[in-house]
Amino acid sequence: MASRPGLLAGIDVGGTKVLGVALAADDPSTVIAEAREPTPDTESGLLDAMAHVVRQLGTTSGQAITAVGVGIAGLVDRKGVLRVSPNLPGQHNVDVGVELDRRLDLPVRIDNDATCAAWGEYVAGAARGADDAVLVTLGTGIGAGLIADGELVRGAHGFGGEAGHMVVDRAGPRCPCGRRGCWERFASGSGLGWLGRQAAEWGRFRRAVDLAGGDADNVRGEHVTQAAQEGDAEALEVMREFAMWVALGIGNLVTLLDCSLIVVGGGLIEAGELLLDPVRAAYATQVMAPEERDDVRIVAAELGERAGAIGAALLGGRDAAG
Amino acid sequence: MASRPGLLAGIDVGGTKVLGVALAADDPSTVIAEAREPTPDTESGLLDAMAHVVRQLGTTSGQAITAVGVGIAGLVDRKGVLRVSPNLPGQHNVDVGVELDRRLDLPVRIDNDATCAAWGEYVAGAARGADDAVLVTLGTGIGAGLIADGELVRGAHGFGGEAGHMVVDRAGPRCPCGRRGCWERFASGSGLGWLGRQAAEWGRFRRAVDLAGGDADNVRGEHVTQAAQEGDAEALEVMREFAMWVALGIGNLVTLLDCSLIVVGGGLIEAGELLLDPVRAAYATQVMAPEERDDVRIVAAELGERAGAIGAALLGGRDAAG
Repeated sequence: MASRPGLLAGIDVGGTKVLGVALAADDPSTVIAEAREPTPDTESGLLDAMAHVVRQLGTTSGQAITAVGVGIAGLVDRKGVLRVSPNLPGQHNVDVGVELDRRLDLPVRIDNDATCAAWGEYVAGAARGADDAVLVTLGTGIGAGLIADGELVRGAHGFGGEAGHMVVDRAGPRCPCGRRGCWERFASGSGLGWLGRQAAEWGRFRRAVDLAGGDADNVRGEHVTQAAQEGDAEALEVMREFAMWVALGIGNLVTLLDCSLIVVGGGLIEAGELLLDPVRAAYATQVMAPEERDDVRIVAAELGERAGAIGAALLGGRDAAG
Repeated sequence: MASRPGLLAGIDVGGTKVLGVALAADDPSTVIAEAREPTPDTESGLLDAMAHVVRQLGTTSGQAITAVGVGIAGLVDRKGVLRVSPNLPGQHNVDVGVELDRRLDLPVRIDNDATCAAWGEYVAGAARGADDAVLVTLGTGIGAGLIADGELVRGAHGFGGEAGHMVVDRAGPRCPCGRRGCWERFASGSGLGWLGRQAAEWGRFRRAVDLAGGDADNVRGEHVTQAAQEGDAEALEVMREFAMWVALGIGNLVTLLDCSLIVVGGGLIEAGELLLDPVRAAYATQVMAPEERDDVRIVAAELGERAGAIGAALLGGRDAAG
């Protein structure tokens, strides 16, 4: 009787929840078990929650977990040290791998969450077969993971893919990163809210103001999206302006990396074609030499909120295998 | 007696000259022979000139040429077809490899010139040992070649590295590529001339106007550089503004790709530290999380005008070896 190979556990640490999945290495498209916990706000609480989610995955699946991968927002270096993370404000240089290994006695690999999600979509999602692809996650900010010739572009330190902080408008609004006009000032959920509030000035864009409780200053991205889903003309106009900004950054990525596929994920993709249609339309004027690369596609992510955990599991498994 | 392995020939097709070098595959830092011809303005003339330069390299070195690599400005696809090139205006889809092979009966590989130069600097120049590096050539426009984890980022079609057409200022001046505010509008030789002419308006920047023959409209990048080399205060101010634009794009590349080395080549690097010093100073404020990557260096290219030909020879040799 062949020995059971065990499962790979993948953990995605988000701002609100720690999401875990268990997979068999040879069938990455089937999630065998899932577990989740709220995200604690202390370092030891977070590490304990991650370990607990992994143990739950073992219990739920009834199989041994043999390797663990973790995706987390922030800058993760190539040794698996979390240099800085929005999920652990004020903490620096947390060696998540060592800390988890101590709790679990398992090999652990840590990566940036968007890097994990890109790998998940490449192996088991919308980017299957596209060896030059970029995943862009449009959420509160923008994350990205880069695949070139079938491999992740990690960079010298492991920080590759911070596309949200490309400057696309030198004179644009100030970004917490210290520069001005970063792509995520415009093309993220925060950017959509900003465009919505601009449109709501002078008493325009009444539907979004209504959805925001009557105060134009409270208009957020989801109010714009909801109004657009209802067919509100001003909301659709804001979505077109937003799509232009999204396409501008996508055009930069295609121009620079010559990827043939852009996978769009993150919370904003819940708007579906309401977002993607105008992005595709705007993209055509936002890339160098579009006529020489008419096969480039912009598609929605397929793995949803599990993308990061699935990719983390696969990367953890690959690392442990050699 | 061991058979002589023969030499690799590399050709760099520029706007004014076709430059060739011959190298031994096992000693890429030694150029054994060099040959050059003026760049013809017809397709057949250009192909003949390239073949002639390769034959000259064989004659001069007294050794057999066993493989040929070619670098040329423009979009070269992964099959070696030159889709479009500023050196062959109006021509499309020239199969340079097939045409040269017909003339030389040798395996030929074609790449973008900046891609070749990046590989040359990586194997035999300023980027030796830096597995995540970008070469940026600042000339009339901007070219770039990307190295990630020790390999070239070619992209899905072969067009990877067109960094000059990243949009860095959405409302900026129009670019021949069809967009606005591309990096090379600001950070190339053309961009330096543009900044110089702006400074020369209203009778300021007299030294550059003198160098331009008395007409502010004729100020070009080299006039700014020369005035800066003489210590002219206004020229140094223009160089600082120019360096800010150069650093803005370099910051975007480091933010996105997390490279640890930026090699600056092209005609403008002849200004040396007069350019690099202010670029390094400006870079510190133009990248995300500089404190987490304080090992990033910005250096001058080492291989000069031969970089593209040396890289082409090495890529041609690698391709022929399998």
